Amino acid sequence: MQIELREAAAKLKSAQKIIVTAHINPDGDAIGSSLALVQILKLMHKDVRIFIDDVLPPNFMILPFVDNIERPNDNDRLTADLLIILDTQTDRIGRVFNMVEAPILNIDHHVTNTGANVDYLYLDPNAAATCEIIFNISKYLDVELTMNIARCLYTGLATDTGFFNYANTKSSTMRAAAALIDAGVKPNEIAEQMERKSLADFKGLVETLKTMQLFYDGKVVGIFVNEEIAKSVDSTEGFIDLIRVIDGVDVAFLLTCKSENLCRVSMRSKTVDVSKIARSLGGGGHIRAAGCSIKTSFEEAKQIIVDAIGEAIN
Amino acid sequence: MQIELREAAAKLKSAQKIIVTAHINPDGDAIGSSLALVQILKLMHKDVRIFIDDVLPPNFMILPFVDNIERPNDNDRLTADLLIILDTQTDRIGRVFNMVEAPILNIDHHVTNTGANVDYLYLDPNAAATCEIIFNISKYLDVELTMNIARCLYTGLATDTGFFNYANTKSSTMRAAAALIDAGVKPNEIAEQMERKSLADFKGLVETLKTMQLFYDGKVVGIFVNEEIAKSVDSTEGFIDLIRVIDGVDVAFLLTCKSENLCRVSMRSKTVDVSKIARSLGGGGHIRAAGCSIKTSFEEAKQIIVDAIGEAIN
Repeated sequence: MQIELREAAAKLKSAQKIIVTAHINPDGDAIGSSLALVQILKLMHKDVRIFIDDVLPPNFMILPFVDNIERPNDNDRLTADLLIILDTQTDRIGRVFNMVEAPILNIDHHVTNTGANVDYLYLDPNAAATCEIIFNISKYLDVELTMNIARCLYTGLATDTGFFNYANTKSSTMRAAAALIDAGVKPNEIAEQMERKSLADFKGLVETLKTMQLFYDGKVVGIFVNEEIAKSVDSTEGFIDLIRVIDGVDVAFLLTCKSENLCRVSMRSKTVDVSKIARSLGGGGHIRAAGCSIKTSFEEAKQIIVDAIGEAIN
Repeated sequence: MQIELREAAAKLKSAQKIIVTAHINPDGDAIGSSLALVQILKLMHKDVRIFIDDVLPPNFMILPFVDNIERPNDNDRLTADLLIILDTQTDRIGRVFNMVEAPILNIDHHVTNTGANVDYLYLDPNAAATCEIIFNISKYLDVELTMNIARCLYTGLATDTGFFNYANTKSSTMRAAAALIDAGVKPNEIAEQMERKSLADFKGLVETLKTMQLFYDGKVVGIFVNEEIAKSVDSTEGFIDLIRVIDGVDVAFLLTCKSENLCRVSMRSKTVDVSKIARSLGGGGHIRAAGCSIKTSFEEAKQIIVDAIGEAIN
């Protein structure tokens, strides 16, 4: 059942024992919104725990309260007054779904959220991030935004908008960011933390950039994280951003070797609908940012993705 | 004479023939604030011209009204009711200073502006950009912010704050950005335009990153635009940003070969005061971002800058 923000706030008020979760493969918005909400609920004197069924990327480990995030164990069974699922739907919270017996309140900004298997859904696809929704809901909850809450919210807001550069950046996003800065956030400190790169990842970036190839008169550009590079890096986050800005490029792609017969493709575009290309290969995403997996050798996968993009641009 | 914003607005109202200029080596804030102000003055039915004594970087050539920017000729002599100098002081406007005979209104956000040789100075060092000041002054001028004015202002605001990531990003900056988005700016379009890189510059970036060297247990990292790379690129904008984020690095520097016995150093830091290092070598800047020129060979300059940074960190 889809509910209003005011009603979602009422659900938080009336529950006492609350469990918060977010999606596996957690990003800044999943972690930031979870940590912010947990701190808000603590200020409301709730009995609250937070579970995410995945490892957390190292850049987020400095966020306030991050040590409170638990991973579920296979045999755990918990009851609560409310399970709050943030920034995703029920099918991407891993073992938390079966572990917790409680009414579910789902809060999300992804327009694709179907609300399957939840009792209450608050969905705001105009919000740039789930953190923007948590910022909005806090106004109904009579709690002060501490600096630590603000830092978590800002992190989600910034990472989900590519630091205020993506098309989802609206004036409401900027005004929320302004309020969080007033609450004590230092934008440069958050940015510095999020941009951090290990020396190994930097070296992997340079090796990857050396593989750059242009296709179709420079309208398409690709970089290739082959088996050797893949072994040496922890994260290829941000690699594709360096090639998608080349003059004349419409579609940029990154091909990563995941294992012997499994490759991963990420695509970005200026005009072409790359979600269509991704879907034709069993993947998905947005018009300008999409991806898919290809179950074959690295060399074959390269040919497949170059051909598929070629069809789309011609 | 330092004046208030309201008084600066009154000067604009009372003048009819106005010339606008900004600093040589113009950046997004210089160009954006000039173009925005000229459009505002045109809406006020002023007779206005805009001169910048330098070539404009290609990324800014899509800004509304950019074709109206003129370069002075050596023999030009102009009179006006007001010369407005934006984003710098009189010593960095090239030949415009001697070309124009008019009372000078200087509007700037650089705390180092001494107001030398100007009649009126409006200085707001709390503004993240001169564009933020032009946004503020527009409220006194009874003109509507058109989308084209907003795009120019947003460009300066975004580029001078590293797209809202530098320490000068305040809540007032974010609220100004919000108002500009409400006036029609698409943040992603501005970001895409500013991030554009030519293929030659991209290749130069890869060659430059390959030269990366660590010093002093990884606390210092340097990259080297030698003579060959320097010849192949138009701009090294953003190169240093890719190395300053490496884990454990405090000081990052970029050494560029300008000519046989002239090298240019750019430095960024997390804690060390690099403006001190720059000043000791005849340069200047801010605590965390500074630069200097070294008049010697590339190899010798490298030794000099590595030694100077080493002294500062130990």
